[in-house]
Amino acid sequence: MALHAEAKMQPAPALTPMDRLTELLAPELADVERLLAERAASPVATIPDLSSYLIAAGGKRLRPVLTLASARAVGGKGSEAVNKLAAAVEFIHTATLLHDDVVDDSDLRRGKAAAKNVWGASASILVGDFLFARSFTLMTETRDLRILDILSRASCVIAEGEVRQLAALGQSELALGEYMAIVEAKTAALFEAAARAGAYTATNDDTVANAMGEYGRRLGRAFQIVDDLLDYGGLTAVIGKSVGDDFREGKITLPVIYARETGSAEDRKFWDRVMGDRDQHETDLAHAIHLIRASGAADRTLETAREEAAAARGALTRATPGEFRDQLALLADQTITRAF
Amino acid sequence: MALHAEAKMQPAPALTPMDRLTELLAPELADVERLLAERAASPVATIPDLSSYLIAAGGKRLRPVLTLASARAVGGKGSEAVNKLAAAVEFIHTATLLHDDVVDDSDLRRGKAAAKNVWGASASILVGDFLFARSFTLMTETRDLRILDILSRASCVIAEGEVRQLAALGQSELALGEYMAIVEAKTAALFEAAARAGAYTATNDDTVANAMGEYGRRLGRAFQIVDDLLDYGGLTAVIGKSVGDDFREGKITLPVIYARETGSAEDRKFWDRVMGDRDQHETDLAHAIHLIRASGAADRTLETAREEAAAARGALTRATPGEFRDQLALLADQTITRAF
Repeated sequence: MALHAEAKMQPAPALTPMDRLTELLAPELADVERLLAERAASPVATIPDLSSYLIAAGGKRLRPVLTLASARAVGGKGSEAVNKLAAAVEFIHTATLLHDDVVDDSDLRRGKAAAKNVWGASASILVGDFLFARSFTLMTETRDLRILDILSRASCVIAEGEVRQLAALGQSELALGEYMAIVEAKTAALFEAAARAGAYTATNDDTVANAMGEYGRRLGRAFQIVDDLLDYGGLTAVIGKSVGDDFREGKITLPVIYARETGSAEDRKFWDRVMGDRDQHETDLAHAIHLIRASGAADRTLETAREEAAAARGALTRATPGEFRDQLALLADQTITRAF
Repeated sequence: MALHAEAKMQPAPALTPMDRLTELLAPELADVERLLAERAASPVATIPDLSSYLIAAGGKRLRPVLTLASARAVGGKGSEAVNKLAAAVEFIHTATLLHDDVVDDSDLRRGKAAAKNVWGASASILVGDFLFARSFTLMTETRDLRILDILSRASCVIAEGEVRQLAALGQSELALGEYMAIVEAKTAALFEAAARAGAYTATNDDTVANAMGEYGRRLGRAFQIVDDLLDYGGLTAVIGKSVGDDFREGKITLPVIYARETGSAEDRKFWDRVMGDRDQHETDLAHAIHLIRASGAADRTLETAREEAAAARGALTRATPGEFRDQLALLADQTITRAF
């Protein structure tokens, strides 16, 4: 009995802001899942097979959560339009992943074999096109031209950024501005569009919607910068299977830019060889991680992400006070704590 | 003097309906060209370089002409919206070509090296994505949700059809219905959407817009069937460099379906080997062409196309009498005369 009371007194394990938002948005997210399955349906079996391989595999549904939470944080009560928008955003993201796998020639995605390794590159390209087209059908159904305007522009920026990143491959150096432009395009643009369009489903106030867009944009930047740091094990992690993708693909990211900046002549030669010439040997990744941590580049990268997260938090002043605003603020903090 | 008069009397060389429509629509087509160049612009040089490689290379601008002529044939006077729509349709078509080249691994497009052989498959995929996104931005600017609805649905059908065609590769037989579904998706869907959405820029009458859509759809079917026949040299042409693409890629088209249907057991073995197993030798294409012509399959294919062209003509009864309607009717006939 005493034992039982004690068990009851024990605090529940702390929910992350994503957990809590997912809990708060459960009915809407269920409807988004239904839309994702329904709109990926096709008599051509490869389409649902390949889509559900990626979509059912899940990921965290970060972008739909951001879309829905942004609407709720500016007074929204939930609507069919915002659910369709959230599904459309996830489709755009999934289409991008499918094309990225082919472009990067990645063999793994979300811990599983990349779709292109199962169904082939051609199917990945075409099913990506299908999901992208479906996302526009969903958005058209919202009958809100602001949504179509925001998302079609974001889609241009995303594709443009991917081409920019492609053109940067094989360079041994990358300017900070060019790196940030890539981050802006490949991650921040869709986060911004999701949050801004989400807000427009609940408000006609441009200032409020733009502030939510700025929240999304800054959150996306923080998120991507930390992702890039995690690809070198973050601040402390031991080298595991899940690190080194960018390194192997010769993608220069912020940890490398900072490490190079303060590195010795010998260090620069190392970066030229492994990133510029893509001449990589067995211990090179470990050495890269060592340089990134020892030079302070890892800390500096995290500091840059922290500034973005703080800016995201700051943009929330236009949101309606309440749990959604609070959880979105915590979500910005969480992007940083992931790095440890 | 007499000579001069005689020279004046000589009829000008007959204009094809495409020539005449291009002449009638010259100011609008010039604006479409401006939009195509303007909206393919980007600070990321690969995007305009690769786009203009395909877009400046030209092609006949059949889809923009169809879009603009459809609007004029139902009483339209020309508008910014229809020009934007025409440019959007051409972007969707170009994006599809870029992705097709990668999927089919074609080395030639419009008589030049395929873009993927110049810029690489990754750039072709991503620039295709960019142009597709830009097409939706253009359509959003028309502020007409009917246009977005029609074109986003057509884009789904196109991508779905491409996956269907991919799944059909390596089969030695293809049902007639499956072939027509592929034709519908890969060509007729965009022709239909262009003509129907074009009409909606000039009329709110659903019956009229749907009739123009039916014209576009039937025209697209006739056009694609004749294209597939031309890939085996049409009715009479000698074997040149420009034939045999479908054959080499193992794509079963109507001439093969018909030739197989009436062929001997030996002929079927031949088709199984060259299409199913893709085991092709030097004289096989010539033999395929021989079988297609000798069996009457070429004539029968053209007859099928002729029925589609007649249906296209028939759909024009809802259009406004005048030169645009007349030229569109002649355009349907022209799809057939191409085969000779």
